[in-house]
Amino acid sequence: MGGLVDDARSRVDAGPAIAELSALLETRLSTAQAVREHHGKDLTYHAGAAPDAVAFPNSTEEVAAIVRICASHKTPIVPYGTGTSLEGHIAALHGGVCIDLGGMNAVLDVNGEDMDCRVQAGVTRKALNDYLRDSGLFFPIDPGADASLGGMAATRASGTNAVRYGTMRENVLGLTVVTADGRVIRTGGRARKSSAGYDLTRLFVGSEGTLGVITELQLRLYGIPEAITAAVCSFDNLEGAVNTVIAVIQSGIPVARIELLDEVQMEAINRYSGLDYPVLPTLFFEFHGTEAGAREQAERAGELAQEFGGGDFRWAAQQEDRNRLWQARHDAYHACKAMRPGSEAWATDVCVPISRLADCIVETRRDIDESNLIAPIVGHVGDGNFHLVYLVDPEDRDELKRAEAHNERMVMRALAMGGTCTGEHGIGYGKIDFLQAEQGEAVSLMRSIKTALDPDNIMNPGKILRV
Amino acid sequence: MGGLVDDARSRVDAGPAIAELSALLETRLSTAQAVREHHGKDLTYHAGAAPDAVAFPNSTEEVAAIVRICASHKTPIVPYGTGTSLEGHIAALHGGVCIDLGGMNAVLDVNGEDMDCRVQAGVTRKALNDYLRDSGLFFPIDPGADASLGGMAATRASGTNAVRYGTMRENVLGLTVVTADGRVIRTGGRARKSSAGYDLTRLFVGSEGTLGVITELQLRLYGIPEAITAAVCSFDNLEGAVNTVIAVIQSGIPVARIELLDEVQMEAINRYSGLDYPVLPTLFFEFHGTEAGAREQAERAGELAQEFGGGDFRWAAQQEDRNRLWQARHDAYHACKAMRPGSEAWATDVCVPISRLADCIVETRRDIDESNLIAPIVGHVGDGNFHLVYLVDPEDRDELKRAEAHNERMVMRALAMGGTCTGEHGIGYGKIDFLQAEQGEAVSLMRSIKTALDPDNIMNPGKILRV
Repeated sequence: MGGLVDDARSRVDAGPAIAELSALLETRLSTAQAVREHHGKDLTYHAGAAPDAVAFPNSTEEVAAIVRICASHKTPIVPYGTGTSLEGHIAALHGGVCIDLGGMNAVLDVNGEDMDCRVQAGVTRKALNDYLRDSGLFFPIDPGADASLGGMAATRASGTNAVRYGTMRENVLGLTVVTADGRVIRTGGRARKSSAGYDLTRLFVGSEGTLGVITELQLRLYGIPEAITAAVCSFDNLEGAVNTVIAVIQSGIPVARIELLDEVQMEAINRYSGLDYPVLPTLFFEFHGTEAGAREQAERAGELAQEFGGGDFRWAAQQEDRNRLWQARHDAYHACKAMRPGSEAWATDVCVPISRLADCIVETRRDIDESNLIAPIVGHVGDGNFHLVYLVDPEDRDELKRAEAHNERMVMRALAMGGTCTGEHGIGYGKIDFLQAEQGEAVSLMRSIKTALDPDNIMNPGKILRV
Repeated sequence: MGGLVDDARSRVDAGPAIAELSALLETRLSTAQAVREHHGKDLTYHAGAAPDAVAFPNSTEEVAAIVRICASHKTPIVPYGTGTSLEGHIAALHGGVCIDLGGMNAVLDVNGEDMDCRVQAGVTRKALNDYLRDSGLFFPIDPGADASLGGMAATRASGTNAVRYGTMRENVLGLTVVTADGRVIRTGGRARKSSAGYDLTRLFVGSEGTLGVITELQLRLYGIPEAITAAVCSFDNLEGAVNTVIAVIQSGIPVARIELLDEVQMEAINRYSGLDYPVLPTLFFEFHGTEAGAREQAERAGELAQEFGGGDFRWAAQQEDRNRLWQARHDAYHACKAMRPGSEAWATDVCVPISRLADCIVETRRDIDESNLIAPIVGHVGDGNFHLVYLVDPEDRDELKRAEAHNERMVMRALAMGGTCTGEHGIGYGKIDFLQAEQGEAVSLMRSIKTALDPDNIMNPGKILRV
């Protein structure tokens, strides 16, 4: 677990492409083992696979030239952002060339009046927000990791405040994409809405590099709210917490974040971050608005929490307090790992209609305990999306099998409840069979599209679909 | 103009398919001339074309059976909702069979806790909202016409409150679609977000029946706001109105509707609806929220309007007053037609980044006047989307040519400003060349997808793309 596989039988000979790419890129093509291995493994438990070479282009035109060379030799291509994906997205299962877009990190244009911007794919979300700092604008999508915006689009990322601002699906206005045969196309545009033809932007968002390489993005921005306030509230049981969430959403309170941490996760962050929250199912809230508006939202949410057995709201109106609160939430992953030193963390997620969320989490928690696993649960519960992190001993094959079996049962439970096998992590190669279980015959259409746009199957082969 | 064309050379012989369909559907297949003509012409100025027969299915399975029969004879298929599209979407340019989904008008499921519902494609937006009346929920998308929800998805419709609630793109969670070879697939699901594979839902939304027939939709619903208030404000000039809109959007006021009517349109609705608004560029606002929230939004918007030279807000807090106000807005089309009795109305739309909206409208207005045309302008200005309606004498070929030339200049102006050739009307066959001008090489990918999913080009052929 967690290592690199190198199955020579499944690899294409990348030699001829590498020779041409070397001439094009010179020192910006690497075949050093450490570089290759670094680029073949994401933050997943799934085994990685090193590419044969890593290219570091500087421009869309250079990406197009790289793709044309690879296409002429039918050499696989794996686009790479920051390597923070979670389902084996960047494993070079058939070898080939990794295209690291990290050097394409320029913010190209910010339009304050239109509240949009254009960035190269390698710009990370934090770099963009640093750049925007004095503009009064921000880009809200926050998957936790400081991922590249190209990678976030490719995996349809979201995170804690998707309940208010949407996911990458809603916030990408247009893309520049290098197609599998090395053409450069632009999808979408700067208009806020359009009925002009097929929605290629949304097709590439979430396509995980299997249809083309995203090199530039036009993104929506938002005004930094006048007031931000946050609060924490504990519940005696999970149902009370989830019913509070349902009531908040139904009553139209435009909550910016609403996160659920179960008692196991709360214990983990208390220990890791030196906090003293009750070890109970807990909601973290954040409200954005005018001073009066944010206050009203918070009061209403507090009233609803009381109705469903919540304790007092612990407020964090000051930025410093809020940062501490959200840092604790963001540290959940590290806090988990610290619970069991030497363990590997394997993150997975599902998403269900919110009416089924309490059932799904309660059954999943019982199943964790019965399976003798350690796996804290955190959730972007306003969307019905929750994660768990299996803390497993990489040497314990039996434990790993129990985790895999649990993951499968959890996904199937979510599907039976009308949900999806992944709310925000994506398919990679870890959830291909679950995609088939979820989407059924629709997968055949995905395969037709893949084959039409990438007939030689060179774009991140083995991800999302088996062709 | 406005009539039906019947170019026998471009028609496929639908006889064999019709014979089989008759056996399947009996009286629910019509070849009556009046029925055929009614189904071949939408609300556009573009010439219609009658299909050879009209089928009235009752179920998804029946649609699939119809499609399989048509596919076996390579007979074209045109899906039909309410016939209220605006760019010739339903003209049976190559003959074939129109599938009228109006009989599939059942609301299948409403989930209050999850705020979603499932409907058959023939349910209209008003019928759905009537059905929801006692649930505290509503479906917000409002393109003016009481269109079918299947048709609204197929054309990626939006309307007056897209600025707050998004378009059909954001509000369709999943679809049931009959593919071009007669399979039934389900896209998306009930989860609020998903990273599971290609976004087929968004691919079918806006595909105008060219990739498959939408037979069912899973839709997002919203809680009816506690308070709704509306207001009207006049400006001495267009720039002041548009700058107010920019300021409102930038300051994050979650305005539910913000509509611009130019002085020509205001004169039309004054006359038509017996109102006495100043004949000046005018903004219509609507605010949704809590009592306090809606009031605060309205006050802030009012302050901003004052800064940019707006007159006093005329309030419409009572439902009766609001209905009168929005009825006047919705009657804009009829008010236009009444300005010039005997004229035909030809509606077109573009959408630009909001920073360019004032320039685009001012130049378009000047061009209208210089072209000696009558064409009031109304706009969903929060999105940068505006419409105009050419009032033309159907017998005056020169006037028609001037309108066509003006439309082309307006679209090209919008594209030069970073906009789109249509914000919400779609491509149909009226804007195919403009789609090419806007999207360039990306159209070749659309064509690849079309060919992959509909290799015999039987699904609404001649729309969006020329294959």
